[in-house]
Amino acid sequence: MPLVTCDISVSMDGFSAGVRQSLDQPLGDIDETWLHSWMFERTDENQAEVDAIVDAGAFIMGRNMFGPDRGEWDLDWRGWWGDDPPYHGPVFVLAHRERDDVPMAGGTTFHFVTNGIHAALERARAAAGDRNVSIAGGASTVNQFLADGLIDELRVHVTPAVLGAGERLFDGLPPMRFEQVSSRGASTVTHVVYRPVREAVDQARA
Amino acid sequence: MPLVTCDISVSMDGFSAGVRQSLDQPLGDIDETWLHSWMFERTDENQAEVDAIVDAGAFIMGRNMFGPDRGEWDLDWRGWWGDDPPYHGPVFVLAHRERDDVPMAGGTTFHFVTNGIHAALERARAAAGDRNVSIAGGASTVNQFLADGLIDELRVHVTPAVLGAGERLFDGLPPMRFEQVSSRGASTVTHVVYRPVREAVDQARA
Repeated sequence: MPLVTCDISVSMDGFSAGVRQSLDQPLGDIDETWLHSWMFERTDENQAEVDAIVDAGAFIMGRNMFGPDRGEWDLDWRGWWGDDPPYHGPVFVLAHRERDDVPMAGGTTFHFVTNGIHAALERARAAAGDRNVSIAGGASTVNQFLADGLIDELRVHVTPAVLGAGERLFDGLPPMRFEQVSSRGASTVTHVVYRPVREAVDQARA
Repeated sequence: MPLVTCDISVSMDGFSAGVRQSLDQPLGDIDETWLHSWMFERTDENQAEVDAIVDAGAFIMGRNMFGPDRGEWDLDWRGWWGDDPPYHGPVFVLAHRERDDVPMAGGTTFHFVTNGIHAALERARAAAGDRNVSIAGGASTVNQFLADGLIDELRVHVTPAVLGAGERLFDGLPPMRFEQVSSRGASTVTHVVYRPVREAVDQARA
């Protein structure tokens, strides 16, 4: 049975982005190599984890991960990833405003979902068929899916830095227990795969 | 040259204790097995890490780690650890009020230091001789030492749970970069050893 997965790179203090995100600074006011050099500069020792990030049949992301604009859509904006984004499949962008689909090269299409995370997940599951659905980020989107018990496998990539401020994984969640499925240290990152312990989740929510 | 080390168990969201710490709940309003079962129930697969925690010539801890009382000393209180605490050496307790030394069985003596973390570290270094000094906790004490660049080796034991509230490692710190010295996953915990990258620390503080 396909899973709902999530990959997210965080600092030791849990931040996946800094503050003041903008066109010039997609991840805000931080040195983004502190979070992502393991993917780009150490690819050889992290290839399996890098590949797994985009190995899904459909993706869901928050609007702030899709682009720097807020409020009304900038219809010229087609994502951060150039003409051929790495998703190669449908990407459902959580939004408050309607927007027509944006088809890209390589099989990626951005769809805009205005009726909430459950509706987005339903569409993503249908589109993914027998493949996984990946919650692509950012942290506030991931936190919403975690809070509603919708993520089956959380893959956290912890990088050796403290950021001190920004958008934080796990913010606002109730106590939840996980199973640690695997944990592997590379030279500049620790990859930990967690699955929620459902009874603990249900208990915490009761 | 001896190091200043620190071992601390934290949840995935960085908490080392819950809220409402008291005599009945030394770690506050949490299920403490969520943070510490790796030490007590899985000792066999974590023996090296467990042993390392108390392998130092002197220790420093915050008053709230020493006991549940606040304000004036309860002179009957001699720590959480029974007659023979696991430290077997001098323990310097950071405090605002003077108190006479408390000698225990097995070589542990609690000393009370009222003139700050640097003074406590100086006394602990002198007492430890050629052995390491360990910052024993809690999180707010660790954060003070990290902020002042006084910890050489931080050993974080990340447990598979989200606590959602409590006393948090790294709170209030400026951006800091670390070297990941080692990282090992056991079945219910991930052990990561970090050393601060001094240039990054100095840059962040400039």
